[in-house]
Amino acid sequence: MSLSLGEIAARFGCELHGDPDGVVDRVATLANAGPDAVSFLANPAYRAALADTKAGAVLVSADDAQACPVPALVCADPYVTYARVATLLYPPHLPESGVSATATVDESARVPASASVGPGARIGAAVVLGEHAAVGPNCVVESDCSLGEGTRLLANVTLCRGVRLGARCLIHPGAVIGADGFGIARAPEGWIKVPQVGSVTVGDDVEIGANSCVDRGAIEDTVIGDGVRIDNLVQIAHNVRIGDHSALAAMVGIAGSTEVGRRCLLGGASGVVGHVKIADDVILGGRCMVTSDIREPGMYGSAMPHQEIAVYRRNVARFRQIDRMARRLKQLEKALGIGRGIGRQGSD
Amino acid sequence: MSLSLGEIAARFGCELHGDPDGVVDRVATLANAGPDAVSFLANPAYRAALADTKAGAVLVSADDAQACPVPALVCADPYVTYARVATLLYPPHLPESGVSATATVDESARVPASASVGPGARIGAAVVLGEHAAVGPNCVVESDCSLGEGTRLLANVTLCRGVRLGARCLIHPGAVIGADGFGIARAPEGWIKVPQVGSVTVGDDVEIGANSCVDRGAIEDTVIGDGVRIDNLVQIAHNVRIGDHSALAAMVGIAGSTEVGRRCLLGGASGVVGHVKIADDVILGGRCMVTSDIREPGMYGSAMPHQEIAVYRRNVARFRQIDRMARRLKQLEKALGIGRGIGRQGSD
Amino acid sequence: MSLSLGEIAARFGCELHGDPDGVVDRVATLANAGPDAVSFLANPAYRAALADTKAGAVLVSADDAQACPVPALVCADPYVTYARVATLLYPPHLPESGVSATATVDESARVPASASVGPGARIGAAVVLGEHAAVGPNCVVESDCSLGEGTRLLANVTLCRGVRLGARCLIHPGAVIGADGFGIARAPEGWIKVPQVGSVTVGDDVEIGANSCVDRGAIEDTVIGDGVRIDNLVQIAHNVRIGDHSALAAMVGIAGSTEVGRRCLLGGASGVVGHVKIADDVILGGRCMVTSDIREPGMYGSAMPHQEIAVYRRNVARFRQIDRMARRLKQLEKALGIGRGIGRQGSD
Repeated sequence: MSLSLGEIAARFGCELHGDPDGVVDRVATLANAGPDAVSFLANPAYRAALADTKAGAVLVSADDAQACPVPALVCADPYVTYARVATLLYPPHLPESGVSATATVDESARVPASASVGPGARIGAAVVLGEHAAVGPNCVVESDCSLGEGTRLLANVTLCRGVRLGARCLIHPGAVIGADGFGIARAPEGWIKVPQVGSVTVGDDVEIGANSCVDRGAIEDTVIGDGVRIDNLVQIAHNVRIGDHSALAAMVGIAGSTEVGRRCLLGGASGVVGHVKIADDVILGGRCMVTSDIREPGMYGSAMPHQEIAVYRRNVARFRQIDRMARRLKQLEKALGIGRGIGRQGSD
Repeated sequence: MSLSLGEIAARFGCELHGDPDGVVDRVATLANAGPDAVSFLANPAYRAALADTKAGAVLVSADDAQACPVPALVCADPYVTYARVATLLYPPHLPESGVSATATVDESARVPASASVGPGARIGAAVVLGEHAAVGPNCVVESDCSLGEGTRLLANVTLCRGVRLGARCLIHPGAVIGADGFGIARAPEGWIKVPQVGSVTVGDDVEIGANSCVDRGAIEDTVIGDGVRIDNLVQIAHNVRIGDHSALAAMVGIAGSTEVGRRCLLGGASGVVGHVKIADDVILGGRCMVTSDIREPGMYGSAMPHQEIAVYRRNVARFRQIDRMARRLKQLEKALGIGRGIGRQGSD
Repeated sequence: MSLSLGEIAARFGCELHGDPDGVVDRVATLANAGPDAVSFLANPAYRAALADTKAGAVLVSADDAQACPVPALVCADPYVTYARVATLLYPPHLPESGVSATATVDESARVPASASVGPGARIGAAVVLGEHAAVGPNCVVESDCSLGEGTRLLANVTLCRGVRLGARCLIHPGAVIGADGFGIARAPEGWIKVPQVGSVTVGDDVEIGANSCVDRGAIEDTVIGDGVRIDNLVQIAHNVRIGDHSALAAMVGIAGSTEVGRRCLLGGASGVVGHVKIADDVILGGRCMVTSDIREPGMYGSAMPHQEIAVYRRNVARFRQIDRMARRLKQLEKALGIGRGIGRQGSD
């Protein structure tokens, strides 16, 4: 597929500085683009690459338009516009409709003619697939699940019993939705399993990454809101609720019954303990660990950044003495009759 | 299925405050229960919900019996009793016995008539399934594996060659048991693989979560004791030994050759370095990292909790100076002729 | 298979102290070896076990040869030599060549007679398998992928569209290579997906662990160099580049566009933020988090080690006060007219 710059400008509301008849048919980075490619500048760290680009056109903000040596498509948010242009140039690879000869579909399942069931897929009893839904190769969809219109499971996905996915969801390979939550009770004879009788409800336009896990609820459902985006190897425990349009980067872990607000951004490998609430519009830095409610929007962190090993070892050793250091500091203040040491606040 | 309160009381040793002919047929939370549901109060955080519950009955400890506005089933451990009642109301969904037409079973495998092999499952040579064992859809069981009586693999599970599972185990979707341990040796030409010739031995009544990995041993076996419960996305490296009845929450990682004692509780995303020993009855807080032997039972932690980002950044910057701070503190003490600064202990 | 000690010595350049006609046919640990087994001593922690070993022979360095009570095979690097001997005694279990009757192979795929396609595997359009390549049971290989000579996918692996693997790679069960990178743009109506139009290029002799994920690039490819070894549950984000012969232990996470040098060793659960560069020959301790470029080879750390819970809680509370402590320290220095407190450097 190819697009003229004039078409791009008109369709996506850009101001074009350059020839409207120029044509692009692919995307590329600023550094490696040729005249057949459209590129973009969103991250200021790449501004230096703009000067040398050979792109057919570049999506830029007004601030960068002047510095663009090739045709510029000026827009308010170059990254969003890039996403829209790229979606036009690279439409998703949709599987053909129909049921593969090697799929195993329970006779009570409802599979519309527009849906696709890939080789080796298993569709259990009473499953309902929406129009244009797709179940990829070797996926397993247990009984009583439902997939909304246009929702797609890629390869080797497992949906356990009764999971409900909204419309236009995209579930990446190896994801497991609806496995039992980790409910165990300590009886005299050892752990006994607590039946997990809830399921999982997933909204519309949700993406769940490769090998991520969303557990079914203990009694009521685990709930993933509309527009939520979840990266790879993420763990969502039973009865967690993720608010609409939140995004969870890879390796995030959310413990049981925690509620994450709307439009939150959880950095890679961040985590939240169980039974807490996180407000809307909270941002967690990478590896941040949340141990109590967060009531105010804003950014939070807790990760310790790398240090050269000898320095790190000395500092870690000192960290183990920090409480003692604080008490020594107070003693010094007392000796000198200054500061907090004289008990002005008493809290330490 | 429905149960009278009298039956519940008799079967599980509860003292019933209320009408023994009351009937329940499902479980529910205190907040959402109706008269057809039995609920429970185990976590004091939910005590407020007790006053307003509309449940048909509530499992409570003696301390909470008075405050229960509906029939109370008084017992020593309401959560354990809840687990037993719920198991009765919600028996596990067992697959039908028999081998699916689309399964591929090696002719040397032993599959009793009571066992179940699901669609698309692969059973390798010399595999032995116990009575009522179940291999779910699209699972792969490589040669020489054995599953004890009643052990079930759900969907898309992989058991590599020679893995032995005890009786009544439950392995959740996507789990991989017996993949090669990470054994590599640095030769002049690059890494060379160290053959992993051990396997994995799993005891009875073990649960392993979705997408978790238990690696095979380098020479001898990796060993998971009886009654161990493992959550999702957990990594157990080669030659680890997990003692009986320990529980590992999601995203725990245990490095090679480490031994974890019995009845340990490892919090979410906690981890242990290789070649150490952890005593029985140790509890690790969430994200705790264990870097050496733990010889005493009790609880341990190391995670840094979240802080508002500006505070966090200042504190992290100071952490990088902590060794210098400690030396400055000592110098002050020396100047004042007090405390440790005069060299009383000398260790810092 | 069995080997005489003379053969081992000759083939692997060892100096034999003992009878060349002694024979071994398996490997064992020092503690559990019998006269039919060859063992090795590489980790000094196991030196005590050498004195009591009953092994048929032990691979040792020159320093340990004297202390060996049984035949010694003296070599420069006992662990590397052990790996070579064990590889001879335990050749990999290769599947039989041929396409399983239950596999689904697109007619445009090229599958040489020496290759193996296991039960339930799916091979998409235009896939090219090298000689002796193997696609294990229930794997899914999407269209346009290529596998080099001798490359093997074990069970339940997913290769997404267009992924290229070099020769002699080994991909463990459940790994997902080429899923979409986590590219999302925040539009007024919610997140919109940024098409991930790059793919993944993997070099020769690469190993990727169970349930690990390597995402496809946003525009250009994600690149894994030759000889790279990746353990289980590792996350490699879009456009990461891993240099030749680096090794990543389990649960490592590398965020987008980061470049890791050659011969790096990334400890378990360590992580690197996006858009940074790590030099060659860098070693990260377990759980180390890298937050900026590392330009110098050497070892780095940042993990906080476990502490008994009461001590930990006091120290964590103090950590939250550390910035205040530093300012109090400075005030004391000022009061005493000593040290940095008088503004010698001003940086704190």
